Amino acid sequence: MNITDKLCDKIIKTKNPSVIGLDPDISKIPECYKNNVKSKSPFEAVGDMLFEFSRDIIDTVSELVPAVKPQIAFYEKYGSYGVAAFEKTVAYAKSKGLVVIEDAKRNDIGNTVKAYADGHLGRVELLDGSYKPSVDADFLTVTPFLGSESIKPFIDVCVKNSKGIFVLVKTSNTSSGEIQDVVASDGMTISQSIAKYVSKQADTYTGEHGYSSIGAVVGATYPEEAVTLGKIMPKSYFLVPGYGAQGGCAKDILPCFNEDGLGAIVNSSRGILYTHMSDEERTQCSREEYIASVKEATLQMRENIYSVLKNEFLQMRY
Amino acid sequence: MNITDKLCDKIIKTKNPSVIGLDPDISKIPECYKNNVKSKSPFEAVGDMLFEFSRDIIDTVSELVPAVKPQIAFYEKYGSYGVAAFEKTVAYAKSKGLVVIEDAKRNDIGNTVKAYADGHLGRVELLDGSYKPSVDADFLTVTPFLGSESIKPFIDVCVKNSKGIFVLVKTSNTSSGEIQDVVASDGMTISQSIAKYVSKQADTYTGEHGYSSIGAVVGATYPEEAVTLGKIMPKSYFLVPGYGAQGGCAKDILPCFNEDGLGAIVNSSRGILYTHMSDEERTQCSREEYIASVKEATLQMRENIYSVLKNEFLQMRY
Repeated sequence: MNITDKLCDKIIKTKNPSVIGLDPDISKIPECYKNNVKSKSPFEAVGDMLFEFSRDIIDTVSELVPAVKPQIAFYEKYGSYGVAAFEKTVAYAKSKGLVVIEDAKRNDIGNTVKAYADGHLGRVELLDGSYKPSVDADFLTVTPFLGSESIKPFIDVCVKNSKGIFVLVKTSNTSSGEIQDVVASDGMTISQSIAKYVSKQADTYTGEHGYSSIGAVVGATYPEEAVTLGKIMPKSYFLVPGYGAQGGCAKDILPCFNEDGLGAIVNSSRGILYTHMSDEERTQCSREEYIASVKEATLQMRENIYSVLKNEFLQMRY
Repeated sequence: MNITDKLCDKIIKTKNPSVIGLDPDISKIPECYKNNVKSKSPFEAVGDMLFEFSRDIIDTVSELVPAVKPQIAFYEKYGSYGVAAFEKTVAYAKSKGLVVIEDAKRNDIGNTVKAYADGHLGRVELLDGSYKPSVDADFLTVTPFLGSESIKPFIDVCVKNSKGIFVLVKTSNTSSGEIQDVVASDGMTISQSIAKYVSKQADTYTGEHGYSSIGAVVGATYPEEAVTLGKIMPKSYFLVPGYGAQGGCAKDILPCFNEDGLGAIVNSSRGILYTHMSDEERTQCSREEYIASVKEATLQMRENIYSVLKNEFLQMRY
């Protein structure tokens, strides 16, 4: 099954085109998660805490959202124990029926990029045969700086293993334009050139809902650019960062969607995990209070996005 | 101590501005490493094998080269067991006095990029205080696609912890030009614009040898571009991929160096680890035969590069 079909089905079922970013930042995680962690070593203790926190978020949102986006940087920071927590987080989210978008922004060339593709989305050869990788994500984010050579091996692995990627096309941050907005001699920006490549690849790998698993990251903070990019990549699913804490509002994400209410999935990380509570509240709250607050923020985001889409698109499919 | 001063000292001492890339590709590692690995699980067995292989390479080259460049993709492919092998590899190489350049091409924005910087080059907060990260590299490679915001946090962490980075400026692969060679309205290519930013940052963090720890990746396969980039970044150390297996020869790397024979370090991975033996030879050889062959390839590379530099630069410092 094309993984984007699974994503679309879950969006329709939950009436929610949003994704929760799992960014377990130790400086912002409520204090109640940091007590009573019994482990052998300081790094193992942090790994255990990261997984406990991630598991609670997953349990809280698993019926409300179609997908989660764990950010590997916050786990990898703690080396092998952190990556072990990441493996468990990805596996746990999948066991709860969630689509998992691994945010790792990997890229390289040649046999190196093949190693990333195999190790996050494909199969790995061990000493006694072929296995699923220990981080077995549904989607992976990919950086295109090294050119098409650095993207194609991911696509090949996706097609073979029914997985997907989101290629960084136009990112949500303020300095994204330094490279991405530069206009080449053919009149297209770097973002638009990458979009053209993504679109071409997406065409060959489209699911029953009409969308491709070769998707694009397009920030909510640049809605005008999103209009142009949507026209270049009609079949690619958009992963849309920049909503909420980064400044994008519900109306800003409209250009990323199609009339059917599909075609995009909006991420919020800090807005769901942290900013609904003050630093002081996060220091003092119980787990139950924290979880209730995360649930409320998730429902609020769904309502905000859904109402704007429903108002705009008469042909909405959910 | 500025880490680039340590790198320069070791280059002068070994009379060798080359670095061995540790790319433990399971499909190319000699069969003799794959037998008799006693471990609890298939992933753990591969992790043990990766470290054994890496340790043998490090032991073989530690007196001959100033630095190694472990490529994390080949370890990370195997999840937490692979990353554990990577941690041990980095620590072992440092214990042998080698400078360690971690090739991970990381980038992101905001608190996410800070997590990468802290976790590879800085300090990490655990539940009971601040620790060195479990992957504690000397240098890290960094991708600039998200703009200066995605680079600055690495630089801040470098300055604070006496570490360094190599920013991808012009990569060695054939499709690197798709983005990197695009000319902006100011007449500069994307590569040159990034170089300008790197140079500005490099100026503020220069060691006693006159070189900065804010360096650049500049491929051996584009020697003409290297001339231009060298003028833009006179103080930045260059990490030069593309030598050997990727087609760059000893003369191609000359534009990356300065008259003192410093300013660049040339990487070879496959040329040192694999291509000096046929697939059949790697299947049949003993460890001793393999190690002897790696040593010979390392000495040959040093001789090739050193003789070309010595012939060209009268003011060579070693």
